[in-house]
Amino acid sequence: MPIHRARAEEQMFNYLKDSDKEALLAQLRPKHHESPPRVPGGTRVTDEALNQRWKLLNTSPEVQERLLDPQTLNDRELFKKNIENFIGTVKVPIGLIGPLRVNGLFAQGDFYVPLATTEAALVASYNRGAQVITEAGGCAVALVSEGVSRAPCFAFRNMEESAAFIAWTLGELERFQQVASTTTRHGELVDMRITVEGNHVYINFDYYTGDASGQNMVTIATEAILAYIDENSPVKPQFSFIESNMSGDKKANALAFTSVRGKKVTAEVIIPGKLIEKRFHTTPEAMYRHYQIGVVGSSLIGTFGIQGHYANGLTAIFMACGQDVACVAESAVGLSRLEVTKDNELYASVTLPNLMVGTVGGGTGLPSQKACLDIMGLHGADKARSLAEVCTAVVLGGELSINAAMSCGEFTRAHQRLARGRQQAAASEEVTIESFVEAASE
Amino acid sequence: MPIHRARAEEQMFNYLKDSDKEALLAQLRPKHHESPPRVPGGTRVTDEALNQRWKLLNTSPEVQERLLDPQTLNDRELFKKNIENFIGTVKVPIGLIGPLRVNGLFAQGDFYVPLATTEAALVASYNRGAQVITEAGGCAVALVSEGVSRAPCFAFRNMEESAAFIAWTLGELERFQQVASTTTRHGELVDMRITVEGNHVYINFDYYTGDASGQNMVTIATEAILAYIDENSPVKPQFSFIESNMSGDKKANALAFTSVRGKKVTAEVIIPGKLIEKRFHTTPEAMYRHYQIGVVGSSLIGTFGIQGHYANGLTAIFMACGQDVACVAESAVGLSRLEVTKDNELYASVTLPNLMVGTVGGGTGLPSQKACLDIMGLHGADKARSLAEVCTAVVLGGELSINAAMSCGEFTRAHQRLARGRQQAAASEEVTIESFVEAASE
Amino acid sequence: MPIHRARAEEQMFNYLKDSDKEALLAQLRPKHHESPPRVPGGTRVTDEALNQRWKLLNTSPEVQERLLDPQTLNDRELFKKNIENFIGTVKVPIGLIGPLRVNGLFAQGDFYVPLATTEAALVASYNRGAQVITEAGGCAVALVSEGVSRAPCFAFRNMEESAAFIAWTLGELERFQQVASTTTRHGELVDMRITVEGNHVYINFDYYTGDASGQNMVTIATEAILAYIDENSPVKPQFSFIESNMSGDKKANALAFTSVRGKKVTAEVIIPGKLIEKRFHTTPEAMYRHYQIGVVGSSLIGTFGIQGHYANGLTAIFMACGQDVACVAESAVGLSRLEVTKDNELYASVTLPNLMVGTVGGGTGLPSQKACLDIMGLHGADKARSLAEVCTAVVLGGELSINAAMSCGEFTRAHQRLARGRQQAAASEEVTIESFVEAASE
Amino acid sequence: MPIHRARAEEQMFNYLKDSDKEALLAQLRPKHHESPPRVPGGTRVTDEALNQRWKLLNTSPEVQERLLDPQTLNDRELFKKNIENFIGTVKVPIGLIGPLRVNGLFAQGDFYVPLATTEAALVASYNRGAQVITEAGGCAVALVSEGVSRAPCFAFRNMEESAAFIAWTLGELERFQQVASTTTRHGELVDMRITVEGNHVYINFDYYTGDASGQNMVTIATEAILAYIDENSPVKPQFSFIESNMSGDKKANALAFTSVRGKKVTAEVIIPGKLIEKRFHTTPEAMYRHYQIGVVGSSLIGTFGIQGHYANGLTAIFMACGQDVACVAESAVGLSRLEVTKDNELYASVTLPNLMVGTVGGGTGLPSQKACLDIMGLHGADKARSLAEVCTAVVLGGELSINAAMSCGEFTRAHQRLARGRQQAAASEEVTIESFVEAASE
Repeated sequence: MPIHRARAEEQMFNYLKDSDKEALLAQLRPKHHESPPRVPGGTRVTDEALNQRWKLLNTSPEVQERLLDPQTLNDRELFKKNIENFIGTVKVPIGLIGPLRVNGLFAQGDFYVPLATTEAALVASYNRGAQVITEAGGCAVALVSEGVSRAPCFAFRNMEESAAFIAWTLGELERFQQVASTTTRHGELVDMRITVEGNHVYINFDYYTGDASGQNMVTIATEAILAYIDENSPVKPQFSFIESNMSGDKKANALAFTSVRGKKVTAEVIIPGKLIEKRFHTTPEAMYRHYQIGVVGSSLIGTFGIQGHYANGLTAIFMACGQDVACVAESAVGLSRLEVTKDNELYASVTLPNLMVGTVGGGTGLPSQKACLDIMGLHGADKARSLAEVCTAVVLGGELSINAAMSCGEFTRAHQRLARGRQQAAASEEVTIESFVEAASE
Repeated sequence: MPIHRARAEEQMFNYLKDSDKEALLAQLRPKHHESPPRVPGGTRVTDEALNQRWKLLNTSPEVQERLLDPQTLNDRELFKKNIENFIGTVKVPIGLIGPLRVNGLFAQGDFYVPLATTEAALVASYNRGAQVITEAGGCAVALVSEGVSRAPCFAFRNMEESAAFIAWTLGELERFQQVASTTTRHGELVDMRITVEGNHVYINFDYYTGDASGQNMVTIATEAILAYIDENSPVKPQFSFIESNMSGDKKANALAFTSVRGKKVTAEVIIPGKLIEKRFHTTPEAMYRHYQIGVVGSSLIGTFGIQGHYANGLTAIFMACGQDVACVAESAVGLSRLEVTKDNELYASVTLPNLMVGTVGGGTGLPSQKACLDIMGLHGADKARSLAEVCTAVVLGGELSINAAMSCGEFTRAHQRLARGRQQAAASEEVTIESFVEAASE
Repeated sequence: MPIHRARAEEQMFNYLKDSDKEALLAQLRPKHHESPPRVPGGTRVTDEALNQRWKLLNTSPEVQERLLDPQTLNDRELFKKNIENFIGTVKVPIGLIGPLRVNGLFAQGDFYVPLATTEAALVASYNRGAQVITEAGGCAVALVSEGVSRAPCFAFRNMEESAAFIAWTLGELERFQQVASTTTRHGELVDMRITVEGNHVYINFDYYTGDASGQNMVTIATEAILAYIDENSPVKPQFSFIESNMSGDKKANALAFTSVRGKKVTAEVIIPGKLIEKRFHTTPEAMYRHYQIGVVGSSLIGTFGIQGHYANGLTAIFMACGQDVACVAESAVGLSRLEVTKDNELYASVTLPNLMVGTVGGGTGLPSQKACLDIMGLHGADKARSLAEVCTAVVLGGELSINAAMSCGEFTRAHQRLARGRQQAAASEEVTIESFVEAASE
Repeated sequence: MPIHRARAEEQMFNYLKDSDKEALLAQLRPKHHESPPRVPGGTRVTDEALNQRWKLLNTSPEVQERLLDPQTLNDRELFKKNIENFIGTVKVPIGLIGPLRVNGLFAQGDFYVPLATTEAALVASYNRGAQVITEAGGCAVALVSEGVSRAPCFAFRNMEESAAFIAWTLGELERFQQVASTTTRHGELVDMRITVEGNHVYINFDYYTGDASGQNMVTIATEAILAYIDENSPVKPQFSFIESNMSGDKKANALAFTSVRGKKVTAEVIIPGKLIEKRFHTTPEAMYRHYQIGVVGSSLIGTFGIQGHYANGLTAIFMACGQDVACVAESAVGLSRLEVTKDNELYASVTLPNLMVGTVGGGTGLPSQKACLDIMGLHGADKARSLAEVCTAVVLGGELSINAAMSCGEFTRAHQRLARGRQQAAASEEVTIESFVEAASE
C-alpha cells in the first residue's frame, strides 16, 4: 500500500510539517481520563433499556424518532434475537425490478425483485437489464455446486505427529459425519480438504447447509467434531483453533474463488442485436468492445475474475432479503463473459462461485426482510437454491445494463455533455438517472 | 472454480442422471410467452405509482405494511432522489456500541457508534472490543492518504499513436485540472497514473473528493476531461470508454490494495495483559498464537492482506450511516497485526487502504441514516476524514474481539461443550451471544 | 501497471518531449526492407548446419569457440533431441553444497547438491543453511500430494448443452483412463476437475506422471481423450482447445497454489539456539522478528504465500539437473514459517505445493545434467519423489540462511559499514561473500 | 493448498495405512550420527580445492569429466567471482532464432537471438514466431518505465513515532540521494514510496540501475542510507531490516505487477491474415478465439495478467545471456492481447512490467554468456534497455507461435491423431517438433 513521496507530502504529512506538528502527533497518544458510561443492557429491549441507551446519546428527539419510530418500537421483540444494544432501525429504501424471467434448474418463472439501496440509478439500471433479459426469453441459470466450510487448525510438535494425525483422520470421516449430524438437522458434513504445513494441519470441513446460509451451523458442528478429536485422536494437538481464516468467511479469496463457497451458479442469456439497439441504444459489437477493455482492466488491477459491479446488485438483494450483507465481501466475485454471435446476437454469461445466501435463519425472519422474500415467494424451506439462481439472474441483468451504458456513452458522450448543462444533470455513477428511468419506464 | 468430479456427481449432476434429465435440461431454455407487466413509474412516489407497483405483486396486505409503513409512506418524497421504482423500506435493526475512544488526527473523543445488522452477536462482539480499547486509553488512528480514481481507456491504431498521446497528456495536467474544477466545487484532480498496453492507454485520474465518497463526482469530472481530450488531443483515439475497471470500483483488487482507494487509515492500541485477562478471558500470548494461525490461513487462501472480519463491522456502519454498502467489496481489505510486548501487553493494529466513506451525498441525507451520523456528530461538511478514522477504530475493536473469542475457546472449548447442552446454546458465528453480552453489559 | 505521471515524465516521455520526438516515434513503425536469412537447419547438427548458422552471425572466432567448444562439438548428437537450430552450449558454473541431511519419506541420507548459478554468494548462502540443518540432525521432509493437469476447454451453443456434456463425462472417467493409458506407460489419469462457465466447460484432467515432470505426457494423453470425446460425446462441442491456461503451466497461479501442481512437499527442522548463534551469528528471536516483517511484507505486495527467495535455490538445482527451468515460474511459491520454541530453538518449515521436477525425460539425460543427478544418485526411475524432497530441503536451507543474514545485519550493520570501505566490499545481494564463505568453510 | 480427502488417501496416506506406518513416520525424525565432511574451500579454484571437492563425491570419472571438462578447467579463474565451492559447469544447449526485426525505442534492427534450453521444440516454436514478426515488418517495442527497489522496514514504539519518522524522511530525499550516490556511479535513487502500517514503516527506495540488473547496487546504496538514518533520524527505530519482502525480489507479486520492477516494456505487431495462414496454418479469427479462452482460463486460475508462456522464452534468454535466471519468478508476468482488425489482420501485443535484465555485472561477463550477448551486440554499457526490448520481442513471438499451434490443432487434431501413430510422434509440449521445424526451416 505504498504512497508515493510526492503524494505523501501533500497529505498526512503536510499537517506534520507546520509548527503544530508536536500537538498534532500528541493527539495520537492514549488518554486515560474517565470515559462516559457503557451502553447498557445487552439483548434487552424493554422501555427501560431503550431509554437508558438513548439517554446516553444526548441527541435531539428527531434523531430518536427517526430510528425508533412507532412500528419499530412495536416490533422490538422481533429484533431481539438478531441484535444487541438495540436502539432502533435504519430504513433503507426499496425499489422493485422486473419482471425478470429466470429459466433455472430451481427457480422458474417471472420474478419481481426488491432491491434495497441508497444509490440513485442502481435500481433503474438493474431494472433495465432485467427487462431486456425477459424480452429475450429469460436467462438460463444453473446452480452447479454448493458447500460451506469451517476450517480449524491443529498444531503438533512436529511433522511426524501431524502426519500421524492425518492418517488417523482419513479413516474417521464417517464418525465425524455422525458427530456433526447430532448438532444439526439440516446440515451435512460432506467432505474434508486437508492442508499439511509443517507441524500444522488445517482441515476444511465442507458442509451442505440446507436452506441456511450456514455459518453458525458449520461452527457448531465443527466444534462437536473438535471435541470428538480431543477425546479420540491418538495424537493430541498442542493446541487447536476452530477457525484459521481458511474457510474464507467474509473475505474475497482465491481458495473460495477457485472452488466454491456457499453456492456456485452460472447464468446466460442470448439477446438479439435488434433488442440491444432498441433497449440499450448500442450494439452487441460496441458492448463486446467495452467488455474487452474491462477484461484487460480487471487483469491489470489484479482482482478475482472479470466483472463490472456484482457488488451493487448483490448488496441490494442481500439488504432487502435479510442476508448476511457482510458476505458481499466474498460473494461479489466471479466471471462475466460477453460474445457476439454470428447472427449479431449478444451472448452474455455470469458465473458466481461464492454466493452465500439462505432463506431460513439469520435476518430472513425479520418482518420487512421476510416481506421482501415473500414478494418473490422465496422465504423458508426449499428456497435457498432458487434464491441463489435469482440473485445470479439479477447480477446478469446488472452487468448487461452497466456495460450498455458505458458502450453507449462512447458514441454519445461528446454531444450529450455539451448539450446538457452539467449542473442540472444529477449524474449517477454511470449515466444520468433520467436515461435509465426512461428505459425503465417505457 | 473447478469442482472435483466426485463432488460434481453428488451435486448438479445427480439431478442430471435420472430419468427426467431431458426435462430438467429443458428448463434452461428461453421461453417466449408473454411476461407480466413492467414495474411502472420510475422515480415517481405518488399514491398512484405506489399502488400500481404493489398491485403487480399480489401479496398479502401484511407484506405491504411491513415495507410501506406509515413513517415510510410519510417520508416517501425524501427517498425520491435515492431510489427508483420505490415500494417501501426495509428496516435493519441498529445496536449501539461504545464508548469507543478515538485518538485520531481528525476524530478525537469517545464515540457511541450505531451498527446496523441482522447477525446476532455482531454488535455484542464489536462492543466488547470497543470497550477494551477505551479502557486501554483509546486507539491512535491516522488517516494517511486519500484519493478516488476514474480510469478511462483510450484505444489507438498503434503504439506510435499511443506514445504520442501520452506525451501530449503529460503536459496537460493543469488544463485537465481546470476542466475538472468546472464540474465540482469539492473535488480536485490531483494526479494521473498512466498505463500503456500496446496501442491502448489507461489513465487513472486521481481525485480528492472532499467529504463525499466521490464516485459520481469523479465520473462527471472525468467526462468533462474526456470531452476536452476529444477536442484537443493531437492524436484522436479510435474509441474511448469512461471506465475500464481500473478504478477498482466495487471490487477487492490488488491495485487499490497496493495504493489507496478512498481513504487509507491505520490504527493501533496497546492493551495491558491484565486487561486482556479481565475482559477477554484470555492472554496476549494466546491471542498472538491465534493471530499467527490466521496469518498463515490468510496466505494459504490467497486473500488481500491479513484480517479476520473487517467486512462485519464495515457493513454494519455503512448500512447505518447511508454509505454505499456495495463498497464493502473493496473496503473490507487490509492488514491486522498483533504482537506481544516485553511487558506482556498486546500490541494490535489495523490498516485499511481502501475505505470508501463520505458524510455528504449518497444516502447520508436520508432520515434514519442522517440520524445515525448525527449520533456520532459526523454528518455533513468536514467530517469524512473523522468518519474514516472512527470506522477504522471500530474495525480494530472487532479484530480484537473475534481473536479473543477464538483464542479463549482454545482452552475452554472441551469443558464448555460438555457442560452445556448444545440445543439451547444459540451459538453465534464465533461464540455464544450470552458470553459476549455478559462482557458487554458488565 | 500504472506509472505515476511524475515518473512517466522522467522516463519514456522525456525522450518524447524534445525536438526529435517525431523521429523517435517513427522508430516504432514497421519496416519492410529485406531481412537477413533465416536460421537454417532445424534439428540437424551436421558440420554443414553448424557452419551455416555460425556464418550468419558474423562474430569473432572467440565467440564461436566459447559456445562451440570441443566437448560440445563432440557431444552434439546428444543434444539433438532437446534443441533446434543448435549452435553450442552455454556453461553455467556449478557449486556444491552439503552435506544436507534429509529425513524424508523418500529421500534419506546426507546429500551433496550441485547448484548452477552465476550469482555470487548464492552457493555459499545455501551451503551455510544446509550445514546448519545437518548439524541439527537433518530436516524432516514429506511429499504429501502430486498431480499434473492438462486443461482443455469445450465450447457449446448454450448451457443446456454444456450441462448435458458434463453429465455425460461424469460417467466416462474409466473410459478416459483407458484411453489415456494407451498413450503412456508411466502416466495415469487419476481425476477430473470440472468448471462450468456459461456455455463453456473446462476440465482439468489430473494425472500422476511417474518420474517425469510430465507436461508432454499429459498433453499426449489428453489429446487422445479429446479424440475419444470428439467421436463419442452425445453433444458435440462447437470447438475445443487442448489447453485453456487452466493447467497453470509456466505461471504462478492461485489454483495451483491452493491445490497441487507437480509435487507438494513440506519440510521442517528444529535448530537449537546455540547452533543458531554459532553458525548464523544471530538468535532465534532475531530471526523470528525478521520473519514477522517478511510476512507482512509478503502480504503487502500481494504474492503467493510467504517466502524469501525460493526461486534462487530452485533455479540453481533446476539448471544443474536438467529440469524445465521455466517451471520456476510456478514452482517458486509456497509458505515458510519460523517460530521460537519454549526452549529457545528455532522451528522452521517450508511448504511448496507446485514443485515440477522429474528424473527421466526432458533435459535429465543430457551429459552434464545427468552427471549432476548422478552426484546425488537421483537419475532415472523411482527417483522423482526423492528429488522433490531434496529440492525442498535445499529451499529450507536457503530460507534459513537469508533470514539469518538479514537479522544479523540488524545488529552489526552500523559497525560493519563504518569499519569497512565500501569500495572493496564486493557485496552480494544480502551480505558479503566473505562472511558467507567464512561460515561455509569453517 | 488443501488436498481433497479422497486424493489424500491415494497419496501420502496410503503409505501410512499399512503395517510399516510406524517405521515410515520414524524416517522423519532427526538423526544425530556423524555426517560426512563439509564441502571445502569457498571461492578457491585451485587444483587442490577442486580435488578435495570431487573426492567427496565418490563418483565415476565420467561424471567429473562431464562437469569439469578441459575448457571449464581452463577457465576456472573466470568463474571465481560468480560461484563458490566450484566443481565444474553444466552445459545447456543453445539454439538460434531469427532474424527478429525489432523496431524499438532503443533496439533497432534484425536480431539473431540465442536461447538456452533443454526443452525440445521451444527454440523451433519461438523461431517461427520471430520469423513471422519479421515478415510482418517487425514489432514496435517501447521501454516505458524502469526502477528497482530495496525496501527496508523500520519498527517504532508507536504510531506517534512512526508518523514523526516519516515526516522527517520526506524532507531528506536529497540527502538520501547524495548518500546513495557515494556507493555507486551508475545507480541513482529516484524516489521513495512509503507504507505506514501501525508502528511500522516500510520504504521502497526506488533506483535507476543503469545497465545492471541492479539488486546488489540497490542493496549497498540502501545500506548506506540506513546508516545515515541511524545517525541522523530524530526518532530512532527500535530495529530495522534492510529488506522486508516489499522489493518483490524473486517472486511474482501484485505490487511489482501493478507498478514496475526492472523494466516495463510493451510491444506490438500487426500481421496480415494471409501471412498467418501461410506460416501458422490457421487464421486470425481462430487465434483470437483461442486467446479468448486463455483469457478466461487465466482469470479462473488467478494469475498475474494474461499470457501463455512468457517463462519459456525469458528463461531461455536469461540462461544464455548470464542474467539472474531466478528473476524469471517475477519477470514472467504480463499481459498479452490479441485482436482481429477490420482488415482481417491479427493485432498482437505483450506488456511486461517486471523485466529484470542487465548487460553488465552478474553473469554477463562469463565467457559463454558474454558470447551470447555478443551475438546480439548487447554486451556492456548502454545496452540494457535494448536487451529488455529484444526480450520483449522474443516473448511476443513465443505468444504468437504457441497460440497458433493451439488454434491450429483445433481443426486438425482429429485427423492428425488418427492418421499418425501415437508411439512414434515424439510430441512436444504443444505440437510435434517436426511441424515446428518444418515451419522454421522453410
